[in-house]
Amino acid sequence: MDHGQRLRTLRGQLPASRIDFLLVTHLPNIRYLSGFTGSSAALLVGPSSAMLFTDGRYITQAKEEVRDARIVIGTTAPAVAAAEWLAARKKKSGWQTTLGIESESLSSGARDRLASLLRGKARLHSAPPLVERARMVKDAEEIRLIREAIAVGASLFHVARKRIKPGAREVEVAAAMEYEARIKGAEGMSFSTIIAAGPRSAVVHGRASAARIPRSGFVVCDFGVILSGYCSDRTRTVHVGQPSREARSLYAAVLEAQQTAIASVRPGVTGAEVDEAARSVLRKVKLAKYFTHSTGHGLGLEIHEAPRLAAGQQQELEPGMVVTVEPGAYVPGKWGVRIEDVVVLTSAGCEVLAPADKELVVI
Amino acid sequence: MDHGQRLRTLRGQLPASRIDFLLVTHLPNIRYLSGFTGSSAALLVGPSSAMLFTDGRYITQAKEEVRDARIVIGTTAPAVAAAEWLAARKKKSGWQTTLGIESESLSSGARDRLASLLRGKARLHSAPPLVERARMVKDAEEIRLIREAIAVGASLFHVARKRIKPGAREVEVAAAMEYEARIKGAEGMSFSTIIAAGPRSAVVHGRASAARIPRSGFVVCDFGVILSGYCSDRTRTVHVGQPSREARSLYAAVLEAQQTAIASVRPGVTGAEVDEAARSVLRKVKLAKYFTHSTGHGLGLEIHEAPRLAAGQQQELEPGMVVTVEPGAYVPGKWGVRIEDVVVLTSAGCEVLAPADKELVVI
Repeated sequence: MDHGQRLRTLRGQLPASRIDFLLVTHLPNIRYLSGFTGSSAALLVGPSSAMLFTDGRYITQAKEEVRDARIVIGTTAPAVAAAEWLAARKKKSGWQTTLGIESESLSSGARDRLASLLRGKARLHSAPPLVERARMVKDAEEIRLIREAIAVGASLFHVARKRIKPGAREVEVAAAMEYEARIKGAEGMSFSTIIAAGPRSAVVHGRASAARIPRSGFVVCDFGVILSGYCSDRTRTVHVGQPSREARSLYAAVLEAQQTAIASVRPGVTGAEVDEAARSVLRKVKLAKYFTHSTGHGLGLEIHEAPRLAAGQQQELEPGMVVTVEPGAYVPGKWGVRIEDVVVLTSAGCEVLAPADKELVVI
Repeated sequence: MDHGQRLRTLRGQLPASRIDFLLVTHLPNIRYLSGFTGSSAALLVGPSSAMLFTDGRYITQAKEEVRDARIVIGTTAPAVAAAEWLAARKKKSGWQTTLGIESESLSSGARDRLASLLRGKARLHSAPPLVERARMVKDAEEIRLIREAIAVGASLFHVARKRIKPGAREVEVAAAMEYEARIKGAEGMSFSTIIAAGPRSAVVHGRASAARIPRSGFVVCDFGVILSGYCSDRTRTVHVGQPSREARSLYAAVLEAQQTAIASVRPGVTGAEVDEAARSVLRKVKLAKYFTHSTGHGLGLEIHEAPRLAAGQQQELEPGMVVTVEPGAYVPGKWGVRIEDVVVLTSAGCEVLAPADKELVVI
C-alpha cells in the first residue's frame, strides 16, 4: 500500500475544506492512511507531515507498520495527546489554526476535552468525510486483497453444504465454517455468521442459533471473513428436502432480481438505480413488499462502507468501487431467500468476485 | 433480569444529576436496562417511563426482549428519533427540559444533530456514568450467568492443552478452542484469542498468528467467550519442552503475584491496593519492570468495565463486583508469562470462579 501517496492526496484536499490539520480518529481510516492496525491511535495530518499518536503497548507494532508518519508514544488518550502537541506548538501571531475532526467517530466527551485543551489556540471544525470518500474507490492492491478475502469466504460455503442436514444445529454449521476460516488464515469473521433455517430464514439478521435445522425448508447462509484487514461477504440459500413449486419460484425470483441488479452495475449508474433494478423484478411477481432491506453496500476495510445501493442514493458508481448485490425476500413466519455476491466496478460494467453457479442447491 | 427495577433505580438518580430525561446510547447500557440486544437503539429514560427507539429490522426481537419500556420503531437514527419525540412533546411553559447524554458513547456529530433538533426545547447535559456505576455491582442473576460463561471459557483450556505441540500453528490452537466455544453455546469470543508461543509470549496482546509453536518455550493462552451476553476471561501459560530453572522461577513468581493479589481482594480495598499487592511480589524478585500492564479489570456485559485494578484507582471494591486478576511478566524477545482468573467479591473476600490447579503445565 502506498500510504505516502494517500496522505499526500488527503493533504491536498485540506485547504479546500479550510482545515490546517485533520485529526483522524476512525481506526479504519488510520489503517488506510498509515498502515497502523492497533486498537488505540489518532493520526494528525498537517500541511507538511503526519504524526501517529498511540500508547506503549504498540511501540514495536507501530514501528513495523508505519512508514510515512512520525510515531509518538504517549500516556494519555491518543486524541488528547495530539491536541496537546498542537496546543504546545508555536503559532504565527494572529493566526488561528483550524483543526478538522471526524465528528462521527469522535465522541462528544472527547470533543469537549479537545476544545478545552485548544481554547484560544485552535478552532475545531467538523471535517467532511474526506477519507471515507477516498476509500470508496479501491486501488489495485486493495482489489487484490479483497479478491483473496472473497476467495477464502466463498470456500466456506462448501463446509456449510456438508454440515447442513436435518437435526444439525445452526451454530454447528457456523462453528465448522469459522474453524475453516481460521485455518485458511482469516483474522476473524467480518460479522456474526448467519445460518437461519426453516421459518428462521425469514429473519434477515438470523445469527446462527442453537435451533436445529428442520427436515424441510430454506437455510440462509450469510458469512464473511477478514483477511489481511479486508472483508468478504456472501450469501447463499439452500433448500433442505424437496422444494415445493412455490419455493422454487421464490428462489428463482430472488436470483433473477440479483442477476438483473448485477447487470445494471456500471460506472455512472446511481446506488438508487441498482436498488430499483433488483426491486422492480420482485415487484413484477408481487414480492417487493417482502424485500425489506436495501440492495447492497460498499465493503473493504469495513464490512459496511460507502457507497450504499438503496433508494434515494444519488452517489454515481465509479470504476474501482466494490459493492455487494444482495436482494432477498422474506415472508415472516414462513421462509426467506437471499443471494449475495460482491462485485468490483470496471470501466465498462462489473466483475463478480468468485463467481459460482447459483442454481438452487437441494440437500 | 428485573429490568423494571433497574430502570426505577436509574430514574431515582436523575434529579440529583439535574436531568429530566436520560438518553442512553451505549448499547451494553441499553441491554442492561431493557434487555434489548439489537445493534441499533436508543433508550430514553424519563421521569415516569422509558422508551426504546429502534428500527424496522428489530420489530419482532424488540417485542420479545423488552418488557419495561415502550417500543418505538422509527426510520431515522434511534437517537434522532428520540430527540424528535422530545421536541414534539408539549412542554410546560417556562420549563426548559434537560436531556442527559452519555457523552462517551454519543458521537460529536450526533450531539450536533440533537442540539439542532432540540434548540429552544431542551438543553443537553453530559450525564455522569450512572449506568456504568450501577453495572459495577452484579446481581445474583448476573453472577449466575458470569459463572456459566466462565465455566465454558475455562473448558477451552483442555482443548488448548491437546492442540499445543511443537510445529502446530498458533491459529490452529485458537480455531479449535473457538469451535469448542461455539459448540458449547457461545455467541462468540469476548476478544481475539491470544495464543503467543516462544518469544511471542512476551507480546502482551499476541493474537494467535500463523506462527508455528517452537520446540521449547512458554505459550500464553488468553481467551474468553460471550455466553448469554456475559463475558469470560482467563489466561493460562504452559511450557513446551522441559522448562529451565529460570523459566520455572519466572512462572512461580507470576503465580505468587497472582495468588497474593487474589488474597488481597475484599470489600473496602481499592483497585490500586490490589494492583500493588501483585506488583510488590514481582518487585522483590526484580521482575516488576517486566509487568507492563495493570492487574485487572471488571467484566460483565463488556470485556472491560469498571472497576480497574491499577495504580491510582481509588475505587473501593464492593460485594458483587467481578474482576480479573492477571499479573504477568514479559521479557521482550525472550519470553512471557501471564496467569489470570476471574473473581467475584463476597462479603468477606472473594471467590475464584472455576478454580483449578495452576502448577506449570509442561507439554
